[in-house]
Amino acid sequence: MAEVKNKQVILKNYVVCFPKESDMNIVEGTITLKLPEGSSDVLLKNLYLSCDPYLRLLMAKNRYVGFGTYTLHSPLAGNGVSQVVESGNPDYKKGDLVWGPTKWEEYSLIPSSQIRFKIEHTDVPLSYYTGILGMPGLTAYGGFFEFGSPKRGENVFVSAASGAVGQLVGQFAKLSGCYVVGSAGSKEKVDLLKNKLGFDEAFNYKEESDLNATLKRYFPEGIDIYFENVGGKTLDAVLPNMRLHGRIPVCGMISQYNLAEPEGVTNLAHLIFKRIKMEGFIVNDFYHLYPKFLEFVLPHIREGKVVYVEDIAEGLENGPAALVGLFSGRNVGKQVISVVRE
Amino acid sequence: MAEVKNKQVILKNYVVCFPKESDMNIVEGTITLKLPEGSSDVLLKNLYLSCDPYLRLLMAKNRYVGFGTYTLHSPLAGNGVSQVVESGNPDYKKGDLVWGPTKWEEYSLIPSSQIRFKIEHTDVPLSYYTGILGMPGLTAYGGFFEFGSPKRGENVFVSAASGAVGQLVGQFAKLSGCYVVGSAGSKEKVDLLKNKLGFDEAFNYKEESDLNATLKRYFPEGIDIYFENVGGKTLDAVLPNMRLHGRIPVCGMISQYNLAEPEGVTNLAHLIFKRIKMEGFIVNDFYHLYPKFLEFVLPHIREGKVVYVEDIAEGLENGPAALVGLFSGRNVGKQVISVVRE
Repeated sequence: MAEVKNKQVILKNYVVCFPKESDMNIVEGTITLKLPEGSSDVLLKNLYLSCDPYLRLLMAKNRYVGFGTYTLHSPLAGNGVSQVVESGNPDYKKGDLVWGPTKWEEYSLIPSSQIRFKIEHTDVPLSYYTGILGMPGLTAYGGFFEFGSPKRGENVFVSAASGAVGQLVGQFAKLSGCYVVGSAGSKEKVDLLKNKLGFDEAFNYKEESDLNATLKRYFPEGIDIYFENVGGKTLDAVLPNMRLHGRIPVCGMISQYNLAEPEGVTNLAHLIFKRIKMEGFIVNDFYHLYPKFLEFVLPHIREGKVVYVEDIAEGLENGPAALVGLFSGRNVGKQVISVVRE
Repeated sequence: MAEVKNKQVILKNYVVCFPKESDMNIVEGTITLKLPEGSSDVLLKNLYLSCDPYLRLLMAKNRYVGFGTYTLHSPLAGNGVSQVVESGNPDYKKGDLVWGPTKWEEYSLIPSSQIRFKIEHTDVPLSYYTGILGMPGLTAYGGFFEFGSPKRGENVFVSAASGAVGQLVGQFAKLSGCYVVGSAGSKEKVDLLKNKLGFDEAFNYKEESDLNATLKRYFPEGIDIYFENVGGKTLDAVLPNMRLHGRIPVCGMISQYNLAEPEGVTNLAHLIFKRIKMEGFIVNDFYHLYPKFLEFVLPHIREGKVVYVEDIAEGLENGPAALVGLFSGRNVGKQVISVVRE
C-alpha cells in the first residue's frame, strides 16, 4: 500500500467577481497508489491540466446551474492529460495515456467511465491534448464548421482570437477560404495573429475607442460569421456589422463571467433585420465528432499547416496564477499547467 | 380619362422615438383611373391595409438599413388587400383580388411584379389576407414551425401574444401538442388568450413586478420555445428560464423600436449554458411556403379550429391613430384599416 504525497489546488472560497489567487490554496494531501480489490476505477498520474475560462463558472456558488459547482476545500477539476497508474477497467492498462476530466492534483482516483479518450497518437506534443487535440480544438472545430457553416469567400471575425479556441477558428477559416480578422488584447498577440497564425488582419481592441468604426474599417462589406468568445460590448458592436443571414456561433462570453452585473447588449434587433442565427454550444455537443476531427487536424499539424501556440505554466503551484491570468489576458495562447516538471 | 380624388396617408416628418398621429397627414390627391398605353403596371383599389409594427422602422431616417425608409410627403406603404381596377399584365384582370405591397391611399398604381398573390379563396373574410392569411399568418407559420421546431409536449412562451402573429403562434403550438403561455398588456387581452384563443395560461406583463419569478411560476420546468415579439426586459427574463437546446425564433422586438437607446440584454451567456438557438427572420424568408401554409390553415379556419381576432379601423382617416396605437397596445388583435367604408 504505497501511500504518497499528493499536491492539490483546492478552492478556498466561492468567487463573486474576479477570481484571485487567494481564492485557491495549494495543499499537500496523500493518496494510496493502489486500487481497492474489485474497484473499476482508475488511478491517474496527471501530466498536463487545461486552464479554461469556463472553470470560473464552477467557482461560483450556484450561479450557472447547467455547469455544476466545485466543492469547497476540494481540488478544482477540469480536463487534463494523464497516465494510467493502475486500472480496474480492462479497457485501460498501466501506462496508457488518456485525456478527459481529472482533478488539479498530482494523482487522481476517478471512475473509469469518466475517461474521455485514450491517446493513440504520441508523435505530437502530449500537452496538445489539453488544447488543439482536446476540448478547445474540438470546440473550435464543431463550433466553426457545424454552427458557422463557412463558405469560401466569406468574412469571419474572431474575438479572443489568440486564445485556446480562437487561434484555431482563425486557421480553420483560412483553410476554408475565408477572410478572417481577429481581435486580441495586446500588441504581442496581434503580431502573433498576423505573423504566425495566418489571420488576414488583427487589432488590439484595447486601443480602439469606437469598435463599431473599427469593424466597419476591417469589414466594409460586413461580417458573415462572428465567432463569439467574449460577449458584452464586442457583441454589441458586431451586430450592426453583420451581413444578411450571418451566423454567430456563441462559444464563450469571457468578458462577462466576472461581472456582478453583465453589460447590456442593445443591438439585438439586428438579428431580425439581418436574419441572423446566433447559437450557443459547448464541447459536449461535439464529442461524437472527435474521430473525424482527429482525421482532419492531425495531418495539418504534421505538415505544419495548422500551428498551435501554448503558454505552459510549470507546476501546480503556478496553477492559481495561470487560471486568474486568463481573465486579465496574461496568457499568450492556450494556457496549460504542466504538473510534472520536466 | 377618369380623374378621381385619392385620399392618402402621407409621412410628414421622420420619427425619432414614439410615432405620433401628427407625424402623418391625411391629404386628398387625385389619380387617373386609366393606365397609359403599353404600361405593365396595375391600378388597384385598396380595400384593407395592414397595420404592422415594422412600419415604424420605415418611418425612421436611415436607421434600419435592410428595411428602407419612406419618402417624406409620400404615402406610407405596406401590405394590403386590393381589387384590380385596370391591369397592364395579362396575369391579372379587372376585378381580381390580390394581396401584397400597396400604399396607404384609396387607389394605387404599382408595378404588377409587386403583387404578391392573387386571392383564390373568398369564403373567408377578405380582411384575413392582411392577417391570418397574409403576412402575419405566414410569419407565424414559418417562424414557429421552421425556426421553433416544436415537438409534442414542449413548453412554449409567446410575448405580444394577442397580436397579429402571437395569437396564431399560440394556436399553432396547441395544434402541435405543446403547453403554451402568452403575455399581453391588458386584462381584456389575457381573457382573450385564455378563453377564445386556447392558450393554457396567460398573464398581463404590466402587473408582474418580477418577470423572472412569473416565468418560473408558469414554467417550473423551463421554456423550450420562446417566440420573441418584444425584446428588451422580457427577453432578459426569458433567457435564464430557457431549457437545454431551447429555440428563440426572433420575429420582432416591438418594445425597442421607439427607444432612442434600446434596453440592454444582460443574460445572453445563457445561450451557451443552455445551448440555445436564437434566430431572426422576416416573412420574406417564407413566401415559398405560402401554398403549403394555405393548405394547412384554410381547413382549420373553416372548421373553427383556428380563430383570428381583428381590430378594424374604419377609413384612412383613422389610419394614423391605428398605427400609433400599436405601440401603446391599444389594438386588440390584428390591427387592420378598412379603406372603403362598408
